[in-house]
Amino acid sequence: MSHNLLQGKKGIIFGALNDQSIAWKVALKCHEQGAGIVLTNAPIALRMGEINKLAEAINAPVIGADVTNLSDINNLIEKSVEHFGGKIDFILHSVGMSMNMRKGNPYTDLNYDFTLKTMDISSISFHKVMQAAYQKDAMNDWGSIAALTYIAAQRVFPDYSEMADAKALLESIARSWGYHFGIKNKVRVNTISQSPTRTTAGGGVKGFDGFMDFAEKMSPLGNADADACADYVVTLFSDLTRYVTMQNLFHDGGYSSTGVTQTVIQQMEKQ
Amino acid sequence: MSHNLLQGKKGIIFGALNDQSIAWKVALKCHEQGAGIVLTNAPIALRMGEINKLAEAINAPVIGADVTNLSDINNLIEKSVEHFGGKIDFILHSVGMSMNMRKGNPYTDLNYDFTLKTMDISSISFHKVMQAAYQKDAMNDWGSIAALTYIAAQRVFPDYSEMADAKALLESIARSWGYHFGIKNKVRVNTISQSPTRTTAGGGVKGFDGFMDFAEKMSPLGNADADACADYVVTLFSDLTRYVTMQNLFHDGGYSSTGVTQTVIQQMEKQ
Amino acid sequence: MSHNLLQGKKGIIFGALNDQSIAWKVALKCHEQGAGIVLTNAPIALRMGEINKLAEAINAPVIGADVTNLSDINNLIEKSVEHFGGKIDFILHSVGMSMNMRKGNPYTDLNYDFTLKTMDISSISFHKVMQAAYQKDAMNDWGSIAALTYIAAQRVFPDYSEMADAKALLESIARSWGYHFGIKNKVRVNTISQSPTRTTAGGGVKGFDGFMDFAEKMSPLGNADADACADYVVTLFSDLTRYVTMQNLFHDGGYSSTGVTQTVIQQMEKQ
Amino acid sequence: MSHNLLQGKKGIIFGALNDQSIAWKVALKCHEQGAGIVLTNAPIALRMGEINKLAEAINAPVIGADVTNLSDINNLIEKSVEHFGGKIDFILHSVGMSMNMRKGNPYTDLNYDFTLKTMDISSISFHKVMQAAYQKDAMNDWGSIAALTYIAAQRVFPDYSEMADAKALLESIARSWGYHFGIKNKVRVNTISQSPTRTTAGGGVKGFDGFMDFAEKMSPLGNADADACADYVVTLFSDLTRYVTMQNLFHDGGYSSTGVTQTVIQQMEKQ
Repeated sequence: MSHNLLQGKKGIIFGALNDQSIAWKVALKCHEQGAGIVLTNAPIALRMGEINKLAEAINAPVIGADVTNLSDINNLIEKSVEHFGGKIDFILHSVGMSMNMRKGNPYTDLNYDFTLKTMDISSISFHKVMQAAYQKDAMNDWGSIAALTYIAAQRVFPDYSEMADAKALLESIARSWGYHFGIKNKVRVNTISQSPTRTTAGGGVKGFDGFMDFAEKMSPLGNADADACADYVVTLFSDLTRYVTMQNLFHDGGYSSTGVTQTVIQQMEKQ
Repeated sequence: MSHNLLQGKKGIIFGALNDQSIAWKVALKCHEQGAGIVLTNAPIALRMGEINKLAEAINAPVIGADVTNLSDINNLIEKSVEHFGGKIDFILHSVGMSMNMRKGNPYTDLNYDFTLKTMDISSISFHKVMQAAYQKDAMNDWGSIAALTYIAAQRVFPDYSEMADAKALLESIARSWGYHFGIKNKVRVNTISQSPTRTTAGGGVKGFDGFMDFAEKMSPLGNADADACADYVVTLFSDLTRYVTMQNLFHDGGYSSTGVTQTVIQQMEKQ
Repeated sequence: MSHNLLQGKKGIIFGALNDQSIAWKVALKCHEQGAGIVLTNAPIALRMGEINKLAEAINAPVIGADVTNLSDINNLIEKSVEHFGGKIDFILHSVGMSMNMRKGNPYTDLNYDFTLKTMDISSISFHKVMQAAYQKDAMNDWGSIAALTYIAAQRVFPDYSEMADAKALLESIARSWGYHFGIKNKVRVNTISQSPTRTTAGGGVKGFDGFMDFAEKMSPLGNADADACADYVVTLFSDLTRYVTMQNLFHDGGYSSTGVTQTVIQQMEKQ
Repeated sequence: MSHNLLQGKKGIIFGALNDQSIAWKVALKCHEQGAGIVLTNAPIALRMGEINKLAEAINAPVIGADVTNLSDINNLIEKSVEHFGGKIDFILHSVGMSMNMRKGNPYTDLNYDFTLKTMDISSISFHKVMQAAYQKDAMNDWGSIAALTYIAAQRVFPDYSEMADAKALLESIARSWGYHFGIKNKVRVNTISQSPTRTTAGGGVKGFDGFMDFAEKMSPLGNADADACADYVVTLFSDLTRYVTMQNLFHDGGYSSTGVTQTVIQQMEKQ
């Protein structure tokens, strides 16, 4: 239901791969709440073509960008401002990739060229996007920038491997930029630590079903799904949350503050 | 501006003392967003009479309750359900009082009868309200309960004295109830850790101006004010944040994640 | 093995009920490392008589004190200084009791007279001990004070009930006093968040075996036992940790930083 | 004073540049407590030659290693095991370098080639060292690995720039490895978050004096110095802390848990 929460706002959304993606749902909900959107994704992801369905549905241009490539990012920011005819109000970063995980390299046997690539794509890309927007003065005052993350940045989930370290780096970059962008022109930067979500990215993690089920049983409200996450992101892009910044916000049905549940204990006691 | 975010919802608001109070502003904004409200405060606060202006403005009944008194609380819950003709969707707890601070007893020379009273009024009262609502099955599914707190629960602010300990207790009670109320019927419980705010309660803290100024200079966005806090509370009572529970949410302009700012360093260097 | 880490130091140890108690083991290890000890416990616990075996073994006086009673606490501090012929170097607080738990009242149906008693015995007692020592100037410079706590202060373990809230309050009191005692004469105050431990106190928690087993499987090193905890406490009382203060220190085999283990996932997958 | 706390233990120490270095003092204190040491540093640092004084004083070989270079690291581990005639008990990682900071590039204008180098040297190097030790099965059961970090990983200190992000990554790597090395053979991994310390590395941070002074005034015990840090590291390498793992341990005189002090407030009020 539209509350026109984002009426007149304009934003860039990274990472809408297909209709399972959180970013896809965020784009839909932001549009529904009155926002104008620019979609972006890696050239290779664009070639899959699904994003065009979304682009059409919400009347948004798609501007490809390799998030590790500075000129792509500069182009994205410039073209977005041009398209909107003005500055940007919000950005969603929903990007992550680990070549080590794709190749099945365990955390105890990483290929470090891949590791640097993982950090570049999954974490430093967020810095690059903000640095470009900052240097081009492309964000409106009181704008809002958010990135998706996972609780593996705080606690070890062995199968999440080096992505845990990448998320810790991402969250730190969010804090650091929250300071600088806040001082500059009141832009806020936060990360949303989402329940495990059955997206194309999530599904690629070995043992994903196991810990998705575990998380479900460990969360008093159950796992938050992609739709609920998109709702939450809308609040963070709205003017109702202007003073929330430099935070890592758990959107997880209570998982992060639950030590154990009766359901888990009972399951553990089965022999 | 109304987005009808709380259309059809009904809630109880504690602690609207006068038009400086955060709770006062929350009541106004919830009303503006379409909610029905019951106001409550301690009998002694009601006698000051200001709340009646608010009650009239938003067409809300005022039901007095001493938050340490179980029959008062039971009566409040029952009368509210009766007034609404149905269950409750949200509750705001904005209550705190330290007799030691009022009497000027320093943290190193507490009167422990007062300390127990502080905990009872400022923290355990939150438990009592939730226990009453839980036992009477008075909350709608996916309802939202929030309490106001302060970062002194995590880091020492010497003048905040035993209220720091009371807030730590309050935050723990929120987590515990978030579990039980989540399991029962999906009700979420959070605390909002707000910037120091010049309210009647805030103003009563010795050295308040000093740390309000310090917090302003240490927050990249500056201190969040009571109006912004009320906006934020509205999002937490809306359906857009259903999976956020058992969290302590900083609404503080980035203060909690800032180690130091240039402004503070420069001020420190003045001799 | 003695390293004479506490040679010449003198300390008070609360809570040595029997040879399962962590406090009992701390007393033994501190003695072994060269410290002089005063033992204390509640009069009712003393009547069980086991503590006399310990007292004899380490040549320590036993001074009874109801931790909620100020004159008992004042007497304890005075008599200890008298016995030692000088100020105190360390204090261990290992005290906790919930009448609601004893009576089987669930967290959603607390008797609040009991709750206030729980807070007084389990948390505020720590304040009382420190306030007495502070006012009597009974601590040596660079002294060390510690209390035992549990991770339920951060995350909900439903069976731990109101003791979770009591521990959150205790940890806040430790931080607050760490500030004031640090400023006064460099005394440090910390809490140790210990693995679930099969002591008389631990064993009294409903469902204890279940979560002890769960914790064992969720800790990369397994649960820390009472002996290891006592070793750790020795380091905190030694001069090697002088600048560690106002911290909650997890002594838990990695539990607090582990999201899930393979062992838990496998157990969860059994149907 | 020697307590023979590390009698018979053997460890590798990274980063002893000169007698101001924390690592230098750790080496001295570990030797004093009975440990055998291998010193290592980057070839360029070794050329400065000061480390030889330390090596002589504690009778330790110096094995150069570029921490980004896998064959150097493999060689270091192998030669150390060879030198010791057995496995390793402890490792200290005290390594960090930001080319962006050296070049004076602000956080809002990073050169990303330098950023990747910063992460590789300051953070991923810790992974490389542990992966080499793990794969070569070079650590004794119940061994202890530690790295030095700074609170900028949790809160923004603007002049600390990208090193903050590097430290967040480092701390995550410590947690991740604490899991895997704990499961493998009970080895623990922690980070020590130290007060700002006037070392060659610390001194290189712009505005360092300002925030060192601020930290001093914000710490109830004052800033912890390098000597105290070395004492603390000794406890972490001893058998008295066997169950402490995957933790970020603040050794900071209470700074991390202090919101404000009277001293800071008074300084802020001077106009």
